Amino acid sequence: MATRMNPDLKKERESASFDPEKITNFLYGGPEKLRRKRELESLALNDPDFQHEDLNFMSREQQYETQLKKGIAMITKMKELNITDFWDQYYYTTAVLVSDGYPMSVHERMFLPTLRGQATEQQKEKWLKMAENYAIVGTYAQTEIGHGTFVRGLETTATFDPKTQEFILNTPTLSASKWWPGGMGKTSNYVVLMAQLYIRGKSYGVHPFMLQIRSLEDHKPMPGVTVGDIGPKFGYDFMDNGFLALNNVRIPRENMLKKYSRVEPDGTYVKPPSTKLTYGTMVLVRAGIVMSSSRVLARAVTIATRYSCVRRQSEMKPGHPEPQVLDYVTQQYKLFPNLAAAYAFWLTGQTMMSVYNKSSSQIEKGDISVLPELHALSAGLKALSSARADVGMEECRLACGGHGYSHASGLPRLYTNSTPAATAEGEHVVLMLQTARYLMKSYTQSVQGEKLAGSVAYLSGVQPVPVAGRTRNMLDLGVLCDAYEHRAARLVREAAEQLRSEMQAGKDQADAWNATSVDLLKAATAHSQYFVVRNFAERLTDTTLDSSVFAVLTRLCQLYALHGLVTNSGDFLEDDYLTGADIRQARRHINTLMAKLRPDAVALVDAFDYPDGILNSILGRYDGNVYEHLLEWAKASPLNITDVHQSYQKYLKPFLQANRAKL
Amino acid sequence: MATRMNPDLKKERESASFDPEKITNFLYGGPEKLRRKRELESLALNDPDFQHEDLNFMSREQQYETQLKKGIAMITKMKELNITDFWDQYYYTTAVLVSDGYPMSVHERMFLPTLRGQATEQQKEKWLKMAENYAIVGTYAQTEIGHGTFVRGLETTATFDPKTQEFILNTPTLSASKWWPGGMGKTSNYVVLMAQLYIRGKSYGVHPFMLQIRSLEDHKPMPGVTVGDIGPKFGYDFMDNGFLALNNVRIPRENMLKKYSRVEPDGTYVKPPSTKLTYGTMVLVRAGIVMSSSRVLARAVTIATRYSCVRRQSEMKPGHPEPQVLDYVTQQYKLFPNLAAAYAFWLTGQTMMSVYNKSSSQIEKGDISVLPELHALSAGLKALSSARADVGMEECRLACGGHGYSHASGLPRLYTNSTPAATAEGEHVVLMLQTARYLMKSYTQSVQGEKLAGSVAYLSGVQPVPVAGRTRNMLDLGVLCDAYEHRAARLVREAAEQLRSEMQAGKDQADAWNATSVDLLKAATAHSQYFVVRNFAERLTDTTLDSSVFAVLTRLCQLYALHGLVTNSGDFLEDDYLTGADIRQARRHINTLMAKLRPDAVALVDAFDYPDGILNSILGRYDGNVYEHLLEWAKASPLNITDVHQSYQKYLKPFLQANRAKL
Repeated sequence: MATRMNPDLKKERESASFDPEKITNFLYGGPEKLRRKRELESLALNDPDFQHEDLNFMSREQQYETQLKKGIAMITKMKELNITDFWDQYYYTTAVLVSDGYPMSVHERMFLPTLRGQATEQQKEKWLKMAENYAIVGTYAQTEIGHGTFVRGLETTATFDPKTQEFILNTPTLSASKWWPGGMGKTSNYVVLMAQLYIRGKSYGVHPFMLQIRSLEDHKPMPGVTVGDIGPKFGYDFMDNGFLALNNVRIPRENMLKKYSRVEPDGTYVKPPSTKLTYGTMVLVRAGIVMSSSRVLARAVTIATRYSCVRRQSEMKPGHPEPQVLDYVTQQYKLFPNLAAAYAFWLTGQTMMSVYNKSSSQIEKGDISVLPELHALSAGLKALSSARADVGMEECRLACGGHGYSHASGLPRLYTNSTPAATAEGEHVVLMLQTARYLMKSYTQSVQGEKLAGSVAYLSGVQPVPVAGRTRNMLDLGVLCDAYEHRAARLVREAAEQLRSEMQAGKDQADAWNATSVDLLKAATAHSQYFVVRNFAERLTDTTLDSSVFAVLTRLCQLYALHGLVTNSGDFLEDDYLTGADIRQARRHINTLMAKLRPDAVALVDAFDYPDGILNSILGRYDGNVYEHLLEWAKASPLNITDVHQSYQKYLKPFLQANRAKL
Repeated sequence: MATRMNPDLKKERESASFDPEKITNFLYGGPEKLRRKRELESLALNDPDFQHEDLNFMSREQQYETQLKKGIAMITKMKELNITDFWDQYYYTTAVLVSDGYPMSVHERMFLPTLRGQATEQQKEKWLKMAENYAIVGTYAQTEIGHGTFVRGLETTATFDPKTQEFILNTPTLSASKWWPGGMGKTSNYVVLMAQLYIRGKSYGVHPFMLQIRSLEDHKPMPGVTVGDIGPKFGYDFMDNGFLALNNVRIPRENMLKKYSRVEPDGTYVKPPSTKLTYGTMVLVRAGIVMSSSRVLARAVTIATRYSCVRRQSEMKPGHPEPQVLDYVTQQYKLFPNLAAAYAFWLTGQTMMSVYNKSSSQIEKGDISVLPELHALSAGLKALSSARADVGMEECRLACGGHGYSHASGLPRLYTNSTPAATAEGEHVVLMLQTARYLMKSYTQSVQGEKLAGSVAYLSGVQPVPVAGRTRNMLDLGVLCDAYEHRAARLVREAAEQLRSEMQAGKDQADAWNATSVDLLKAATAHSQYFVVRNFAERLTDTTLDSSVFAVLTRLCQLYALHGLVTNSGDFLEDDYLTGADIRQARRHINTLMAKLRPDAVALVDAFDYPDGILNSILGRYDGNVYEHLLEWAKASPLNITDVHQSYQKYLKPFLQANRAKL
């Protein structure tokens, strides 16, 4: 490969100040884990069963069919190869699926975990074995066409009929139709249905029910079941997100998943012990989104950075050759803050995973004291990281000029398949306000003299105060952490004061909360950003870090913190914590840092270790041979199967000939 | 329609403080123009020849074919109906094409104008008549696979051969292949080719040549011509953007478009009188992009605002019904600044069009003194408005939650078809730096005592200075304009000083410019934003405005200015021009303004006057009957043609049955 490498990329790699393999080891947890990752990726990437035409060349139906076929092969092979470890599965499936998924992913991510978590042993015996062995395929049906965020507002009903010992399932209104569950449209024959339990006219809230929706014989919808695909979307073409309407569908009493609550034969309702247990799963899911947000951003930055070294444009100096686009400081300003953010969130995701793992045994034992803080932290960080990745991916696409707009860049598909992370599993504002609620509670406790712990400890500490006339070194990570801490603490305090003042002015709590919500958002965002900055800085205190690695990661950390600071400079200036001179100093440091990072940029994206098969981008190819492969790819696309498209005979020829005849 | 209207939307419309028709008149230039707009829209929307299945249900090839067919019908009908006025054509074609285009649009937008502008009378006689009557169909081939922004870097060559009196056309390298021209892949049989003119080994720069690329008999590529489609993209599925490689293709000397420069039979080159004339066209194109940016943003805001009144979610107060999503202040904060921006850029586009029209006769007479300022202004405003629309459309999509991600919302397609505006006709940074270059020149002139005019006059004036301790009324549009003026002037001055200081430190001009470019971007952005704010405020001084309209437009103008101010508060605080108290006051005003705008939100988007047929969004339907139409749309989508998809027999059934057998 090296012999054919684009000379510009070759030069970039030769001039890096560090060996990217060292950072790759750091990012993936050491040489052994990295070796295993690469082994699994090679296994998948070299498997002929996973090769196919570019999905971008296919209709949606073809994409669904291709990914269904591939998903089945992937499941079969993982079983054969005994790939069972979480990370092993992660690396293998990522390499199989590239930036796409497959129609049965919700079976794995939600259907099986719900059965494991909510079914009794007897129920597991009946269904879990079938499900784990793919004798049935299922999904998780919660969201309705008119109801998402607010689970208590779901309209689907499960009415207990003591005479027949059955539940009668209905979607009584149009807005009650289940909507969105992945794999429900065409693939699944079972669902876990979330429905309002009614016994003798009384509602007992939302519970899970096991429901067969399609025949095991011919896959046709069961009586009373209307099911189908919800139609094409921005991305996720491969996925048959489905709708489901139910008309008096009867299921046995046994089909309520009843590990935690159940209905007795006489209609007595036995309620669950605690409702907080599921929070643990939510924390894990959100930590996973922080991680995947960092990774999609890392992929986008890899593509844009490599391409910006291959692409040459304009004349910086008269008579000189066209410079590499990355030599323009404005291009660095588009890409390097995103590069730094990818690293920052990568480390944040790792920390969250490790905090979760440390707490999970505690939680499983029933000690849920850490959950509120963990839950609040994970909400804000999920919201922050997914939004940041969303914006960053588009910045990277736009930084690739026209070619970024082509599917050959891989960036449009990466974006459309990743942007749901900003909405699913908790919408951005909803989650930030969950964090804010915890911050308000913590602030009140600290005012009352309680000592806070964990990520909110700083709220009860003495915040750094502005020192008039003092010159700060804005490159100092301690100074930067202090500034972020001060800003978060101030914004939390001011939001709390605003909330109180709204109530003092006569608003009830709900209206006061609503009136303050933009300030609360701001406070929760500042809190989350402070966590990311501090976490990055703390990871750099690892004394085992190689000095060349330490140097370059420190620059990234400084850039991340300084870029966030100048972008939100008003927050730091508003109470005179920082001065205009500090901000000006920060801006100059950013320029200097970018100049220092410039020769290391390619090595820093190489360190993310995305092989071409996963990156799936002609612009981001490791060898940099962009233009020839763009042309080759275009020639293979469907409109070029014939030189003259059939529409010429049908429409264009008669039109042109008639017009010619008239002249 | 009114009898079936969603009751929430009905209530919204009944409670508005003004008659939306009055604003519609204001936006479209009076009742007569509005009547004509609606007439043309109805004509297109009710024409059975333009009806077809949702493009989102089609493969790319089907979309190309559908839009080709529709485009031909549209051209034919416009001729029959004698629709020739610019705005008449705009409204008619918008209604035919919705948020898409057709493969021959570059023939209209570039091929014909280039022939009109660059061909001699004799050449017009030969080609223009054929082109205007669609006896031939053409496109404009400039961009190459390796060259976009930098026109002088184009590699395609036209070498004069005096022996045969021909030009020999070549794309000598891979990176010289023409790439991107719309309609070139499959549709066009002619192109205007931009190529480097060589005479006797000497280069004379880029010139236009008329080249036939496909046979008029069978549409096959001409000898030496390789042509095809560049493959699928983020959007623009209907368009056959093409590539073109040329291998010793010979064209007669007469095929150089030679109104301005030509090659004599003996090889003598006659150079053009001035190169600045084409700037006028660029200004017009950019003004058009400002206008269309405001309109796509208006469409996105219309969709999201109406849907936010239909959608109900969560429990704001225990026991109360779920509120309309737009009652959440956070939702208002997502949408209302975009609503205000759509109005702000709508008015900016109008002003630019009118300034251009006022100057164009002057320019046509050869007086190009206004061009530098107009050019600089149009560059920055095009960059600002297209970037703002890009971000705003995605904010609107995300504000619609899950349903925003469905193609039923119309938002993904609106975005993918509109986002090229941020890159095409001058990339964002490139254009902002053109504006910055003019600002630096103007600043130098003002320092030297020259009096500046037009949009940069403020740079030579006395800027408002901060008054310590004074309390400002941050709702006062005069105060806000002053603040934006001060910020722009300060950032221009600081960028100029930074540029000078980089040069004093030893950098040559190019390196100093590059090192200062982030500051220059910031200055050009602030300058452009100031223009938008001031223009909005000035339009409100129109004394013929109805008082209810004046009141609500004033709120929008205040919101636009205040939102930009708090979002960039550091710029106003950095030199103590504003105080922390001013910013806090601004934030509170935003909340108050949003509360006042809340009851008028639906009327304000209704006033944009987008009929359902053009809005093309189920979420944004005028009648608000969202859920039933979502379901109906989904049921019509291709994956639902059969209850059981064919892939079940092929892949899923054998898999599930084998697994069942093993249990």
